[in-house]
Amino acid sequence: MPEKNNSVAVLGLGLMGTALASALLKAGHDTTVWNRTAAKTGPLAAQGARPAETVTEAVEAAPLVIVCLTSNDRVRALLEPEAPALAGRTLVNLTNGTPGQARELADWATEHGIAYIDGGIMAVPQMIATPGAYILYSGTDEQAYATHRPTLAALAETKWVGKDPGAAALYDLSLLTGMYGMVMGVAQAYALIGSAGVPAREFAPLLKDWVHAMTAGLVPGMAEALDSGRHLTDVSSLAVNQAALPNFLDAFTQQGLSTELFEPLQTLLDRAVDEGYAADGLSRLATLIKKDRIAAKKD
Amino acid sequence: MPEKNNSVAVLGLGLMGTALASALLKAGHDTTVWNRTAAKTGPLAAQGARPAETVTEAVEAAPLVIVCLTSNDRVRALLEPEAPALAGRTLVNLTNGTPGQARELADWATEHGIAYIDGGIMAVPQMIATPGAYILYSGTDEQAYATHRPTLAALAETKWVGKDPGAAALYDLSLLTGMYGMVMGVAQAYALIGSAGVPAREFAPLLKDWVHAMTAGLVPGMAEALDSGRHLTDVSSLAVNQAALPNFLDAFTQQGLSTELFEPLQTLLDRAVDEGYAADGLSRLATLIKKDRIAAKKD
Repeated sequence: MPEKNNSVAVLGLGLMGTALASALLKAGHDTTVWNRTAAKTGPLAAQGARPAETVTEAVEAAPLVIVCLTSNDRVRALLEPEAPALAGRTLVNLTNGTPGQARELADWATEHGIAYIDGGIMAVPQMIATPGAYILYSGTDEQAYATHRPTLAALAETKWVGKDPGAAALYDLSLLTGMYGMVMGVAQAYALIGSAGVPAREFAPLLKDWVHAMTAGLVPGMAEALDSGRHLTDVSSLAVNQAALPNFLDAFTQQGLSTELFEPLQTLLDRAVDEGYAADGLSRLATLIKKDRIAAKKD
Repeated sequence: MPEKNNSVAVLGLGLMGTALASALLKAGHDTTVWNRTAAKTGPLAAQGARPAETVTEAVEAAPLVIVCLTSNDRVRALLEPEAPALAGRTLVNLTNGTPGQARELADWATEHGIAYIDGGIMAVPQMIATPGAYILYSGTDEQAYATHRPTLAALAETKWVGKDPGAAALYDLSLLTGMYGMVMGVAQAYALIGSAGVPAREFAPLLKDWVHAMTAGLVPGMAEALDSGRHLTDVSSLAVNQAALPNFLDAFTQQGLSTELFEPLQTLLDRAVDEGYAADGLSRLATLIKKDRIAAKKD
């Protein structure tokens, strides 16, 4: 069967893989799908996808192979035997993983003549092919990316973040790290206000607006300080934050809550002030979250 | 000297107290100021404030006394001898503290015939009397609040949060708790992206937009789940998050960063899944950050 330029194979049909394949089909791409348990190909076949019997058959069906599994260990196990079939094709790996894993897969792919692009999906499956969703891409072969970008654009907005194959994973993890911090804060905030019987829905608009306003100021402000190395502040010094945090831990305890999520912040603030950064702003903390800072404190 | 309805005394002229007094003066209020070190009254006197020699003199100058010190222990030490002078007046305490401290001060004030209103300032000094700044108020004497609200409105938008004197502090701490979580996330995100040499300014717009988008979805979504008790999700389960977090901790370590701020989140996710909440969303975490949950795990 002759390959068409816009044909694509999708390996792995979990919630995300299914959403990806479905978006490709809706955009009119010839889409071949494969999943370890074949039953998952059914709904996509009904939308026009071609189910492949084997991974090799799927890979050979298209110049662009998209893989989305639950871990990069599984990607490696699945694709290592397929190196001959993948040679000369472009492999886009949208599996969640670390920058180190992406670089190892890229090295393996390069050795076998496979163009490797790593991707980080900034969306849940429900958001695929809707406005606001985007996918970060990186890899050594920017030309392969340029060739297939029009196809990938069917999934979500595309953002190229550089030739380090680990860059997409690094951006992805960094953005989600920001989100996980926010999740810790919001969960603890709801626990605290809830401990006094205040309905969460009543508190939600205040909390959303407050976190938005603080994010709008702190995120660019911290970036400015970090890039310039000038952390001094006249707004909210580490000394002030260090002195304030016990009120929070006390209030959590008084209200029957655990302090487990916020104790490390107190420890970090104490260390920052100890190290002489009392007059610096919160941006300084980003420079102190280092392994060697913990192992061997100054003095 | 006859009191005027809109006269006010401000005790404590740190950065915040000075900003408050200055806003009152700009709004045309007769403003008496006092500070432990008298030199700080100078710039305000130049704007028309009347410096008081003693706390008693300041208190007796106005029906509305605003106090803003560095801790409620200091408020207590300063004002206990002034109970006779404060009797019949309204005391608005804008010092940072816990709900428990506010309730104790309210009890003391009520015993001495002082109308006590506790407040939580949702702004840094630079934001006082600018749009977006607001102050949360609570106290048993809502009438006293109604009487002085027009004067307090000169400082920032006013938000009444109820008759529990601890409510303003609780809302204040809860909002700032949300912010501190975001700060942890953003600091760690900058540390991670910076470990690969990416300039923070380049990453900042992505980070800001991402945290905004996630906040806009998660904050109301969590409130809905918490109030209804329905935490099941088809978007991002605790099991998925538990499985994903090791990628983050590994990436931090690989990039030379400390995992100290995020280890407790892994522990909490592990506990949540252990306790049978694998299919629930992140909202479930807010119900598990409890002292007794740590002391005695289920089973």
